Amino acid sequence: MMRTRPLKVALLGCGVVGSEVARIMTTHAEDLAARVGAPVELAGVAVRRPSKVREGIDPSLITTDATALVKRGDIDVVVEVIGGIEPARSLITTAFEHGASVVSANKALLAQDGAALHAAAEEHGRDLYYEAAVAGAIPLIRPLRESLAGDKINRVMGIVNGTTNFILDKMDTTGAGYQEALDEATALGYAEADPTADVEGFDAAAKAAILAGIAFHSRVRLDDVYREGMTEVTAADFASAKQMGCTIKLLAICERAADGESVTARVHPAMIPLSHPLASVRGAYNAVFVEADAAGQLMFYGPGAGGSPTASAVLGDLVAVCRNKLAESTGPGESAYAQLPVSPMGEVVTRYHISLDVADKPGVLAQVATVFAEHGVSIDTVRQQGKDGEASLVVVTHRASDASLSGTVEALRNLDTVRGVASIMRVEGE
Amino acid sequence: MMRTRPLKVALLGCGVVGSEVARIMTTHAEDLAARVGAPVELAGVAVRRPSKVREGIDPSLITTDATALVKRGDIDVVVEVIGGIEPARSLITTAFEHGASVVSANKALLAQDGAALHAAAEEHGRDLYYEAAVAGAIPLIRPLRESLAGDKINRVMGIVNGTTNFILDKMDTTGAGYQEALDEATALGYAEADPTADVEGFDAAAKAAILAGIAFHSRVRLDDVYREGMTEVTAADFASAKQMGCTIKLLAICERAADGESVTARVHPAMIPLSHPLASVRGAYNAVFVEADAAGQLMFYGPGAGGSPTASAVLGDLVAVCRNKLAESTGPGESAYAQLPVSPMGEVVTRYHISLDVADKPGVLAQVATVFAEHGVSIDTVRQQGKDGEASLVVVTHRASDASLSGTVEALRNLDTVRGVASIMRVEGE
Repeated sequence: MMRTRPLKVALLGCGVVGSEVARIMTTHAEDLAARVGAPVELAGVAVRRPSKVREGIDPSLITTDATALVKRGDIDVVVEVIGGIEPARSLITTAFEHGASVVSANKALLAQDGAALHAAAEEHGRDLYYEAAVAGAIPLIRPLRESLAGDKINRVMGIVNGTTNFILDKMDTTGAGYQEALDEATALGYAEADPTADVEGFDAAAKAAILAGIAFHSRVRLDDVYREGMTEVTAADFASAKQMGCTIKLLAICERAADGESVTARVHPAMIPLSHPLASVRGAYNAVFVEADAAGQLMFYGPGAGGSPTASAVLGDLVAVCRNKLAESTGPGESAYAQLPVSPMGEVVTRYHISLDVADKPGVLAQVATVFAEHGVSIDTVRQQGKDGEASLVVVTHRASDASLSGTVEALRNLDTVRGVASIMRVEGE
Repeated sequence: MMRTRPLKVALLGCGVVGSEVARIMTTHAEDLAARVGAPVELAGVAVRRPSKVREGIDPSLITTDATALVKRGDIDVVVEVIGGIEPARSLITTAFEHGASVVSANKALLAQDGAALHAAAEEHGRDLYYEAAVAGAIPLIRPLRESLAGDKINRVMGIVNGTTNFILDKMDTTGAGYQEALDEATALGYAEADPTADVEGFDAAAKAAILAGIAFHSRVRLDDVYREGMTEVTAADFASAKQMGCTIKLLAICERAADGESVTARVHPAMIPLSHPLASVRGAYNAVFVEADAAGQLMFYGPGAGGSPTASAVLGDLVAVCRNKLAESTGPGESAYAQLPVSPMGEVVTRYHISLDVADKPGVLAQVATVFAEHGVSIDTVRQQGKDGEASLVVVTHRASDASLSGTVEALRNLDTVRGVASIMRVEGE
């Protein structure tokens, strides 16, 4: 069965992930050949700094001209692990034009331009695989678009950013504040010098867009995803969560509306019950919870980032794409036939935990309750705590739309007896 | 892109799973057609009792002649959900000969004759998919043989039988004995009238054989799997487990030997630490923990049985096989190139928890410790409890081979001061 002409792979980028891909391709060459049905050869490596010593990589393969590499014409598969929008996008398109299929780990690019890239792949009869773009080594894209292809997915809810989960877990277990936990994450290498993409939820939002598109067979772009970072989560929020038997996680949530006619995608911190499987996801691990009509509740758990885990996902895709090349076929492409529109955040329905600082005098609770009722937001529980003329009210609501809740909060702020809205947090997973 | 000639599906078996497959094929016909790229039509249903009313299935599709159905010649895919060895095996082989690919949920058959069936599929250029054979709706076969195709899997350890997990979970949480918990499982429909296949570990052993074969790219048959049921697990074992910060699960464990030259596969009850992700798998849920060189530790969790979850897995395979049919290609077949031998149980290395009933007099511990030392089994901790001239010794060992441990236990039984070996349990997941 083994053919002798090797499949040629061009590697774009040789950082943490790329160097690990190259290392495994070299050290596990025999296994890869047996699994693919032909030798798989590293034919070129495009880098920015050619002078850097790269152990185990033949220096003659190194080039700074990525465009020339993908245009060579003898490349079967391009592995893109550069990240960012350009030049990755142009290189991938050029690769398709010159006969190569593509394996990418580029979540930002796929969330922004996935549709155009899929169209280009299909036009040229190539594969575009990107398991590594979401949740590192955790098999997720393939299960969603293949294993569950005969089912109806209603919700995908996950912890898809390891940096923020590390920080929140630290705050939960040690009582540390946000800044202290971030400092520790930075010192340990879990957070980058500029942590904005992680802590403001941009990274998770890109992943949510990709997951929602696949789960609902529709196009969901990064701009469609509501996004709230976790920089304002406080130790007090964790204390409140504990009183409710909850913890706080930064969640990416993709949901089909109750009527099935639209979808939503959002990223924000939320309280979830300690009994929920996602509550026990510790440190920098990722996990994604999937609910489908027939399958029920599934969870996928594992390391969400890092050179080796991401390389594992890249290599799994590489084997699949190489097999397809040999069979002269392609795997499943984009599936967006359902064309479900993405609803705005105002239409999302969930529960809320609201802490108010109020005047400690009779009638305040009645006033507050009236405001909730006027906006159609039903209250589940209220807890009053008073001290020294100050008091706090903690309200947990039943399910209500985000728009109704926003209206309620605006009206609460206008009450004389409400001195401030200390925090608003969504409650999920119940 | 949509072609109009439908792909024709023959359904063999219309019990709990089959009827759900038929129902989803009918109610979700448009989605399946969009995802496959052609209509998918139920062309015949083979049953044993044709007189039974089957809601939503056109009576003209029902037949008792399964062989004639798979021989019709116009069938693109045969879905086999009969179970058991015959007639399932002959029907699948006949299906391959007459042009059909096969989706099966038949763990017993695949564990016993997987190699021959894969060979028949390859000979005729057909697909043989069987995601539903292991862990119900949980995507596991596809992640192992595709997502992790570029990685080296070292261990697969899982709870793959929902009935026994329900019973053990009940014993753990309520303190019930085995019989009492089994009775409740039977009353609730989690255990069959004859629970042998579940409680004696046959079902889990079949799944272990399938998982080991895929994970290690080798042939592992049911006979290669060491098997120990969970009928002798007692409330006292759970009490001992709790003292160690553990619980007890029936585990299927497939491991690559430290030297990489052989593998082992086994099913038995074992203590695992409460901190291990598998420890919190409750009720009839399944979960499988996978360790790979590059990916690290992954876990897959979900409902392991039931009509709808199993149908979800069958339909995911059906979509994949139909796509392959349209593309005139086939998916990945058997991968057994590594040909690693399966070592006997004696070579398995793990830790042990041993409870001994001993005479309450000086020198017993020294005698017992000497026996362990003579057999090369290193002791981690010993706990002595004495009352009324009787005493118990609980020994937890460091890692040792099963053969060494067996030799130790035999020698212990021959000591005058050892009145009985109350229990021996392996300790995993540390």
